Order: sequence, then structure tokens, then C-alpha cells
Amino acid sequence: MTETQPQGVFVRSDGVLIGGSILLIAAAGITRFANAGAVPAFLCSAVAVALLAALVGRAVEQLGDRFGAGATGALQSALGNLPELFIALFALKAGLVMVVQAALIGSILANLLLVLGLAFTVGGVRHGTQRIDSQRARATTVLMLLAVTSMLVPSLASYIHTPAAPHEGALSLVVAVILLVLFTATLPASLKSKPSGDAAERREPPRWPLPLAFGMLVASAVAAAFVSEWFVDALEPAMHVLDISQAFAGLVIVAIAGNAVENVVGIQLAAKNRSEYAFSVVINSPLQIALVLAPALVILSRLFGLAPLTLVFAPMLVAAVAIAVLVTAFITFDGESDWGEGVSLIALYAIIATAFWWG
Amino acid sequence: MTETQPQGVFVRSDGVLIGGSILLIAAAGITRFANAGAVPAFLCSAVAVALLAALVGRAVEQLGDRFGAGATGALQSALGNLPELFIALFALKAGLVMVVQAALIGSILANLLLVLGLAFTVGGVRHGTQRIDSQRARATTVLMLLAVTSMLVPSLASYIHTPAAPHEGALSLVVAVILLVLFTATLPASLKSKPSGDAAERREPPRWPLPLAFGMLVASAVAAAFVSEWFVDALEPAMHVLDISQAFAGLVIVAIAGNAVENVVGIQLAAKNRSEYAFSVVINSPLQIALVLAPALVILSRLFGLAPLTLVFAPMLVAAVAIAVLVTAFITFDGESDWGEGVSLIALYAIIATAFWWG
Amino acid sequence: MTETQPQGVFVRSDGVLIGGSILLIAAAGITRFANAGAVPAFLCSAVAVALLAALVGRAVEQLGDRFGAGATGALQSALGNLPELFIALFALKAGLVMVVQAALIGSILANLLLVLGLAFTVGGVRHGTQRIDSQRARATTVLMLLAVTSMLVPSLASYIHTPAAPHEGALSLVVAVILLVLFTATLPASLKSKPSGDAAERREPPRWPLPLAFGMLVASAVAAAFVSEWFVDALEPAMHVLDISQAFAGLVIVAIAGNAVENVVGIQLAAKNRSEYAFSVVINSPLQIALVLAPALVILSRLFGLAPLTLVFAPMLVAAVAIAVLVTAFITFDGESDWGEGVSLIALYAIIATAFWWG
Repeated sequence: MTETQPQGVFVRSDGVLIGGSILLIAAAGITRFANAGAVPAFLCSAVAVALLAALVGRAVEQLGDRFGAGATGALQSALGNLPELFIALFALKAGLVMVVQAALIGSILANLLLVLGLAFTVGGVRHGTQRIDSQRARATTVLMLLAVTSMLVPSLASYIHTPAAPHEGALSLVVAVILLVLFTATLPASLKSKPSGDAAERREPPRWPLPLAFGMLVASAVAAAFVSEWFVDALEPAMHVLDISQAFAGLVIVAIAGNAVENVVGIQLAAKNRSEYAFSVVINSPLQIALVLAPALVILSRLFGLAPLTLVFAPMLVAAVAIAVLVTAFITFDGESDWGEGVSLIALYAIIATAFWWG
Repeated sequence: MTETQPQGVFVRSDGVLIGGSILLIAAAGITRFANAGAVPAFLCSAVAVALLAALVGRAVEQLGDRFGAGATGALQSALGNLPELFIALFALKAGLVMVVQAALIGSILANLLLVLGLAFTVGGVRHGTQRIDSQRARATTVLMLLAVTSMLVPSLASYIHTPAAPHEGALSLVVAVILLVLFTATLPASLKSKPSGDAAERREPPRWPLPLAFGMLVASAVAAAFVSEWFVDALEPAMHVLDISQAFAGLVIVAIAGNAVENVVGIQLAAKNRSEYAFSVVINSPLQIALVLAPALVILSRLFGLAPLTLVFAPMLVAAVAIAVLVTAFITFDGESDWGEGVSLIALYAIIATAFWWG
Repeated sequence: MTETQPQGVFVRSDGVLIGGSILLIAAAGITRFANAGAVPAFLCSAVAVALLAALVGRAVEQLGDRFGAGATGALQSALGNLPELFIALFALKAGLVMVVQAALIGSILANLLLVLGLAFTVGGVRHGTQRIDSQRARATTVLMLLAVTSMLVPSLASYIHTPAAPHEGALSLVVAVILLVLFTATLPASLKSKPSGDAAERREPPRWPLPLAFGMLVASAVAAAFVSEWFVDALEPAMHVLDISQAFAGLVIVAIAGNAVENVVGIQLAAKNRSEYAFSVVINSPLQIALVLAPALVILSRLFGLAPLTLVFAPMLVAAVAIAVLVTAFITFDGESDWGEGVSLIALYAIIATAFWWG
């Protein structure tokens, strides 16, 4: 992220990001309205969503810098998952409940297994054994474990506790409210605990003027909303053409497209031997999905009259995420990572994705 | 527990405890025999049981002090769960097997999630981040994990290993015997390892004379036996009036009433920043339930010809306790606690309790 | 393993091993061809297999010493499970798929619960609390956790993810290939990381000449192949006479006979207070079963046209191994072991074995 040749207020990567976003929005629009076929429309909109997600993240970062590291964290929590939120809302509008559920779980899996695995592999190959032994890493992992576990309780109740099964909607709502209350209660503390050293390092010299940062946020968010709809529209026909199941599409494709930023940033940081910070980015994403994104979608799906989302996930999704969370927890408590662990995590991700191939 | 104004051999809290117990035994008796309604009779007997449990604990402490810290531990192991034992036996006599099973699991859940959560929250708000990183804490957690896991094997075998299902009674008996043998074998070592420093600190200046301590133990135990029967008698009608399921009643109400002491003591200790000792009290209770109370009840239910208790718990009870044990283990290995973890634990407890609301 | 009175190139234990092997091969042959009854034939061949397994291990060790510690590790990985491989192939030829699956899981359980428990108990009684807190121990445990978890995914998919169930063969093959690729990729690194100090200590003064070491390896491997067939032939009639189920036979009897070496070596090392090395031997066995033996059997069963082995294990086998792996992981991260933990592990093994008694 550090750039040597700034161009005005933008660093070179900003230019690539903005240019690329405009290009791919155009491409996505053309393939969509010119009926260029399901797969090209789908691919263009997927890449456009990923780029816009990165742009939203960058604008949030610039805007937050005005108000200190704490505000950046708060904004990132609130807005960082914006593209995923849009995609999920449009998918629920289209009745693709299974896709949304698979994408929520898939985001967690992709972060904890694929991205962490890639980060460990890249970091390990470049720098040998890397340490992740801070108290902060362990504490975040414990909170992530608690949040994800809480999110899974309605699923368990629905399968194995017969009397609760007919009330899965009510139970999901109660759990969603409890998780959002928990998020709100712990937000101030989690902001304060942001490591100022890391934030300082992260801040690049050229800063966007406030109106530019704000305007970029609004523009990229609005664009993300549009392109998300195109992406969801193209998803179903593309699934048919490519013969992909709802579960696999949500779990792998939507999850990876929606998390492109965390993915790239986490791996980049590991490559720069900033393993603690890479780990924090990767592990925070599942925490926010369980504490904010999933509960918010449960409530919004009711408010907006969309296909009602419950927290009753398919059993195999629950098993997969339980495995991923447990394995990651042990890896954090291990205190070190190397490329062998990284490759093993990627193998586990591939195995789980294979199991979902037959949707 | 340290008091500045002793009154003879009693500290002020003893007076409150004895007076309160007598008052509530009277109230429980009156509501019971005057047919004052199911709910008042139930509430009075519940509070009376909790106070008598505290009184038994206090008498055991005073008695054990005579014979050293080791004997206190042994007596506490043997007698500390006495009120829970009485309640369970009367409930089995009344055929409420599901209540007893839910109460055993509920005791573990209440200790590991609710009480630990409250202790972390209170301790964290008052003292910031607290450390629980002793080898002893980790070793106790591992033993607790092993004991609870062993207790759950018959349930797993019964659901998912068809040939073992018809033999659930025999399997439960074998497991009960193995667990009691394990308890007996490890008892001497666990006594020796009691930290003398902590025991010394805990000992308050005024001591009860031996006959008083012994008399108080007998009296409170006998009273606990009587009131336990009233409590169980009032439980079923109260469940009907309040429209509460057997599972919820056992899991939440009986569990919290029967563990009132550990609950209060654990939270008090955390508030005094003695987090290691608080943790030890809270984590020892599930260990004893799995190693002593549950196996003893399985065997006693046969010997006394009560409704036979097996260790085949309802699947959701098994899932809930597995979650609680795993989460707590990671929290111990984390080495620190703060109020954010505490609030998250309480949220998880609330979510699990909600899932059991529909019985 | 250190001996004070070497006899030529052999230490005394070698003599006992070679003599015992010849004796028991003879006994196994006689009981088999003289129709001396199912149980004697079975017992003789079981002990002969265990002794030959030890002899293969010893020859590998001597051969590997020629090429450095790395080569020893590579040879041990490749050949150490040779007797188990033979038994499994003959059992698959005889159509005993359930026995093979139970034996694979049983090997993991026996190592992680029974052998580790015995090692902790023996080591703890002799030397008090023992430490296992190296980074290496934790890293190996994490890899073991990842490998075993990956191996279990097809089972989970088959039970709880209906669309994948009809494709359990294909999924097992894909997973087997991924695991073997993972093994091949991580092999060079795992060889390099062998602690040279420990290897040096382990090397006894008298060394076998190269032709002797090679000849002994070939001879013991060929003998192991023959006796494995006798063992499998005697297994079914013995199961009928002793009224033992396929699951119990595989899980307990085949697993313990096939792992006799690791068992004895692990316990001996703990007795000598070399707890880190004992732990490494015990924990490496499940790692190799999941990464090499099980995947190889899946592929070989197809190539050789035997009863096709899948990685879809019976649910209770999956639950048992999940419990064992989790418990062991916490025990490693605990950093210390004592005999109380050891006895608890043995109790858990006994409880799981009891659950499988009703096959």
C-alpha cells in the first residue's frame, strides 16, 4: 500500500482502482444491456463489485483518518461490508435465500481457510516462520469464536431440538437482536483498543480532501448498489449455464467476490511480514459477519418484505464453519505460522468446497 | 467474605445467611401447606434451597479448616453438591428425568457461560483486563474437558451408533462407574494441589467451634433435604402455571437455584480482582458434576428404584454443553479476560436459553 | 532402547525381537495350518504382526541412519505403517471394509487416548509433572488437527449434505488425492525440521552393516505381508467365536496390534522423562494415518480391485476421533502433563471402546 510516486492526492493504486472500477462498471453495463450472455455479464459484474468494494474501503480509510484511528474502525465496521450487504439484499429480493446463507458462511470460510492459508503460505515462503502471538490476536479470536458460535445456535436448535424447530424465525430474530446489542455494547471498547502504532504506519502521506473522500464514498457506494443488482441478476442464469448449485455459488463465488478486499489486503500484509496485522484483518471479517452483517440481514429481510432470512443454515454449512473456526482458533493459540500450515488450510478449503460441488 | 465487624464466632454474612434460611424455610413451609398457590410456593422453596446450599458450603468450610486445606477440598467435593443431589433424587422419584438431565447440563452451562460471564464483566468493569494464566487453571480446564466429554459419550453412542442404542442403560452404568473410579483415583492428588496461599487468605479470623460447625452441617443438610422435596413438589405445578417446559425449567431455573453459591462466590471473587480463584471455583463445579454428581445419580437412581437416570441427554443439551466447554477452554487458554468476553458469554447463555424456551 | 551389553552388531533387544518374531511366525503358521482353532491362530498371528512391525521399524531406523536423520524420517513415513497397510489390504480383499475403517480410526484413538494416556501416567508417576511446551509440539498438533479434519469432511458431507451423498466415492478419491499432494508438498519441510539433537541421542553405538539392514527390512516386510494375511484370515472366525463386532475388532484389536511399536516406544520414552520426544512419536502416527495411510488405501483399493474403501466412516467413528483430536489439542496447548491427565485419557478411551462393544 505504500507508494513511492504519488500523483496529486492519489497514490498510483488509487488511480488503478478508480480507472478499473469505471472500466468494469461500463463493461458490466454493456454485457448486461447488450445481452452479451450470462457468463460474461456475470464475470464483469463480479470483478466490478470487487473493485468497488476496494474503493469503498479506501474512501472509508481516508474519511476515518480525519477523525482518528477509532473512527476508521467504526466506519469500517459499519461500511466495510456494504457491498456484501447490497448483494445479499438483492439476492433475498430475488428469493435466493440459500445463496445468501451460503455466502455468509462462505465469507467466513474463505477468510479463515483460504485467505489465512494464502497469507501464511506467501508470508512463510518469503519470511519463514511468522509469529502471531499477541494477546490481542487471541482475544479477537475468542470473540470471533463466541460470535460465530452464537450465530450457529438457531441452526442446531432447529435440527436437533424438535420443539424449537417451528419457531426458527422467532429464534433467529431474538438471536439477531442479541448479537446486534452485543456489537453495539462492545463497539466503543473495540475502537479504543485499535493499535495506534499500526494505524500510523498504515497512513500514507497524500490525503484526500474531505469533500473528495466523502464524495468518493457516496459515489462508490451508490455504484456498488447498482452493480450488486446486476451481479445478482446475472448470477442465476450464469449458475444454470455453468451448472453450478446455489450452495456452491454462494459459498465460493459470491463469498470470494464480496471479500476481495480483505483477501488482497490480508495477503499483501503477510507478504510484507506484518503477520499480526494481516491476521487481524482476516479474523475481523468473520467477527463482523456474525455480529453485524448476518443479524442485520435477518432484520432487514423482514422490514423490507424480502424473502425472510433465518439463521438456520444447512447442516453442512454449520459443520464447515464450526471446523473452520475451531481450526483457526488452535492456529492462533499456536502462536506461529509457516507455509506448511498455510498449505494445509488451503487444502482444507479445497476439500470443503469440493464437498459442496454437488449442491 | 472478609468482614470487619465479627459478632462472636459468626461474621455478619453468617447471621444474614442463617436468619434468611430460617425465614425462607418458614415461608416455603407456609406457602406449601397453606396452599398459597404454585408460584409463591415454588419461589420461596427455590430461594430457601439456594440459601441452604450456601449454609452447607459455609459449614463445610469451617469444618474442613480443622483438618487443613486438603480436607476442605475433600469435604467440598463430597458435600458441596448435596442440595443439588437432593433435588435430583426427589425429581427422579417424581419421574422428572428430563428435568434432572436438563438441570445437570444446565448447571454446567450456568457456571461456564452465565457465572463466568458475570465474573468477567464485573471484574473487567472494576479492574480492567484480568489475567487467568496459571498452569493450574489450564490443567483444571483440561480435566473438566475430559470429564464432561466422557459423560457425553453415551449420548453420542445412543443417537448415532445404532447397535449401542438399546443398551443405553448398561453403557451409562459402565461410564458412571469409570467416572467415579477416575474421581476416586485423582482425588488425593487434587487435594494436595490446593494452593495453600489462597486457602490461608480465605480463612476468616472467627472460627466456629467444632460442635457448632458439625451441628450446622447436619442441620442445614437435613433442612436442605426437606426443602428440596418441597421445591420439586412445587416445580411441576409452577411449570404448568407459568407455561414453562421441563427442559427450560431444569436448564435454567433448577440449575441457577442449585448453584446459587458458586454463582455468588465466583462473582464476588472476580469483583475483588481475585480472578484466578474465581475461575477455579467456577470451573470446578462442572468438573464435579461430570465426575461425581451425574455418575452418582445414575447409580443411586437404580439402587433406590427411582426413575432410572441414564447419561443419554437430549441432543440439544449435548450440543449446548459441548459449545460451552469448548468456548471456555479457549477462554482459559487465552490467558486474559475482559468485560467484552464477559458480555459475549452472557449473550451466548441467553441465546442457548432462548433456544430451550420452546421445550 | 539403550543397552549396556551389545552382542556383536545387535543389542539385546534386537535379539529378543528377531527370536520372538521367528517363534511367533512359527506358532502362527502351526496354529493356522494345524487347524488349532480360531482364537489361538488369531492371537499368535496378532502378536507376530506386532513383533514384525517392531522389526520393520528397527530396520528402517538402521537403514535411515546411513543417510542422515532426514532420510530416517522419510523412510519411517513411507515404511513405518507397512504392516498396517498389509493388514488393511488383506482385510479389504476379504471385504471387511468396516474393519479397515474402524482400524484406521482406532489407530488414531489408540495413539491419542490410550498410548498418550499411558505415557502421561507412566511418566507422571515416575517424574511428576512433565512439560510438552515446545513450539514444535504445538505445530505438529495443528497439522495433525488439519489433516484429520480434512479426512473427516467426506463423512460429514455424506451424512448431512444430501446432494453429496451419492458421490461419496468420488469425493473420497478427490480428498485422498489432495491429502497425498499435501503430504508430498510438506514432506521436505518436515524432514528438515527433525531435531538433530534428539536423533543423535537416539542412535545406539552398534550399527548394522548396510546389507544386513536392507536384508532385514526386506525379510521382515515380506514376513509381515504373509502374517498379515494369516491375521486377517483368523480375524473373522475369531470374531465369531469371541462374539466381537466388526467395529470393536477393528477399533480396538486391529488398531492396537498394528500400532504396537509406537505404543511401546512412546511409553518407554515417557518413562525415561523424554516427554517431548514421546509426544512427537505418538502424535505423528495419526498425522501419517490421515495424510498417507488412509488416502493410499482409498486409491489402492480401486487400483487393485478390492472392496472399495471410502472416507465415509460410521458417524460414531467420526464423533470419537473428533473428540480425541480436540482433547489432545487442548492437552498439547496446556503445556504440561501429569498422571491425572493420563488416567483421564485412559478412562475416555475405555468409555469410547465400551460404546463400540455393541458393534
